[in-house]
Amino acid sequence: MTSRRQFIRNTAIAGAGMSIVPHWVSATQKPQDKIEELKVGLIGVGLRGTNHLQNLILRNDVRVTALCDIDADRIALCRNLIKEAGKNAPLIFEGGPYDYLNLLDSKEVDAVIIATPWLWHTRMTVDAMKAGKYAGVEVSAANTLEECWDLVNTHEATGTHMMILENVNYRRDILAVLNMVKQEVFGELVHFRCGYQHDLRHVKFNNGKQPYGGGVEFGEKAISEARWRTLHSVKRNADVYPTHGLGPVAVMADINRGNRFLSLTSHASKSIGLHNYIVKNGGEDHPNADVEFKQGDVITTTIDTARGETIIITHDCNLPRPYSLGFRVQGANG
Amino acid sequence: MTSRRQFIRNTAIAGAGMSIVPHWVSATQKPQDKIEELKVGLIGVGLRGTNHLQNLILRNDVRVTALCDIDADRIALCRNLIKEAGKNAPLIFEGGPYDYLNLLDSKEVDAVIIATPWLWHTRMTVDAMKAGKYAGVEVSAANTLEECWDLVNTHEATGTHMMILENVNYRRDILAVLNMVKQEVFGELVHFRCGYQHDLRHVKFNNGKQPYGGGVEFGEKAISEARWRTLHSVKRNADVYPTHGLGPVAVMADINRGNRFLSLTSHASKSIGLHNYIVKNGGEDHPNADVEFKQGDVITTTIDTARGETIIITHDCNLPRPYSLGFRVQGANG
Repeated sequence: MTSRRQFIRNTAIAGAGMSIVPHWVSATQKPQDKIEELKVGLIGVGLRGTNHLQNLILRNDVRVTALCDIDADRIALCRNLIKEAGKNAPLIFEGGPYDYLNLLDSKEVDAVIIATPWLWHTRMTVDAMKAGKYAGVEVSAANTLEECWDLVNTHEATGTHMMILENVNYRRDILAVLNMVKQEVFGELVHFRCGYQHDLRHVKFNNGKQPYGGGVEFGEKAISEARWRTLHSVKRNADVYPTHGLGPVAVMADINRGNRFLSLTSHASKSIGLHNYIVKNGGEDHPNADVEFKQGDVITTTIDTARGETIIITHDCNLPRPYSLGFRVQGANG
Repeated sequence: MTSRRQFIRNTAIAGAGMSIVPHWVSATQKPQDKIEELKVGLIGVGLRGTNHLQNLILRNDVRVTALCDIDADRIALCRNLIKEAGKNAPLIFEGGPYDYLNLLDSKEVDAVIIATPWLWHTRMTVDAMKAGKYAGVEVSAANTLEECWDLVNTHEATGTHMMILENVNYRRDILAVLNMVKQEVFGELVHFRCGYQHDLRHVKFNNGKQPYGGGVEFGEKAISEARWRTLHSVKRNADVYPTHGLGPVAVMADINRGNRFLSLTSHASKSIGLHNYIVKNGGEDHPNADVEFKQGDVITTTIDTARGETIIITHDCNLPRPYSLGFRVQGANG
């Protein structure tokens, strides 16, 4: 067992080692050709993409060379942030949903960060890899099994790398537990629990003016995530967002590093949370009170792994509840 | 919302109302024929049956009239407890595994409490109902789907009552939450979690001299529960003990009172806990180190109900862990 000081140092080093920027190189360069400055293009600069921008402009070894969005207001906001930081003006791609392809053609871009609505993730990542760019894509990265294979097949065909930007993997508590797993504190692993238990009702609905809450609109009458994310709850009865839970567990369980997922079952509860929210905040006569949501409020998925562990994943985003991803790591030692 | 005082009074009344003894009447009497003293026979007086006896001899409205066990030492111990309490000597049935049938024939017995190994539960309860006795049977009460139907069919044919003695249902915390459910504190119910998370390794193994631990023997070389219970872990890969968790949830979810279980899936993790315990405490050369345990260490079962709730049940008894049944009740209000 290492000392607490050593433990924190190791964790900090692991965290730095896993941050993506210092190790990225242009896809056309060999790893040993150290470059002074990484040229990053941002595809999608909503709230999440803007947050990435704010982090990137703090660094001297990164230059944001291109911005792409269909929303001119977001582009203007981000261009201003870059200007205020005293950095060079980026190339702008705001010519509709497919202008990102022009961004990918640019030699001013080594790598891209994709922070667009979910249904664009795989398509854009595949196109980025085909264009020889390193691609960082927001979760959930893929929506179907076919899309998962699209990512694998494209990586194998192009040799270009992509990374899922699953931020929970790098939380300090998660890295601490990962360190404990690797030090075999838990012994041989047997069982995991994880998930996404997060009351997103104010994210799924707004008033078209503010990004969070203030109304019960979604889709075209809403802005930000409620504009597109909520439709997944209308149309899909599934755990549409498993990676916050599964990302850290997959690393701890050596998934695709000597272990793999074998099979799963999934159960959905009734769906009442979003409807109740609309009735409570918009009234029974609001048009959205008639919307039928397919997504069960609590989705329970259990996975068997090749090494014999079981994993319970929970998706629980439509009911009032305190935030908790509900992690458990259980092994032969406890 | 009631006051705390009222709440506690209601809970206490509910507890008393649900305790089995005051409302029992001889099966041959009509409910309105109030009897002075209930005549109870005990079938199985191991640790659990003896515990029932100790509670019963504190009451003035109950007389323990018969004892049945294949172990003469346990009979002697219990007979002594009755004598020390200044009560009349009971009838004794210690003539082998089927002498309980003679107990059931006795007119000195109105009701029986069955606290024998699991595989005897259904058979003895069915025979008790056929003999016109009220039967209280320890958990788990049935081991197969067919046995569950045996209990239902016998009740419907005889009109005689049986009750599963699921003690967790009557814990103060469980009754408090049940009261909250009935007062709709949680709102419409959506999701439950429950189970049996209890490190039973010292129950599953002993040294043949003491009931708990002190060795790694089970079966014929062991005494008490390790003599029979551990074999279920050798031969069955299943949640063999779901009622501690499912009993309270079934009441809260109105199962068979307007709601019902529809379907389930079940996943078992690897099985390493009991083997590791034997190796650690008995050494690699102990004969039991070669035993293959079928039962996975963590069994996860998810049930769908007719009203659309989901229930996760956990069986987790072979690993070092703190005791917790892991209850969660989740509804539209939280």
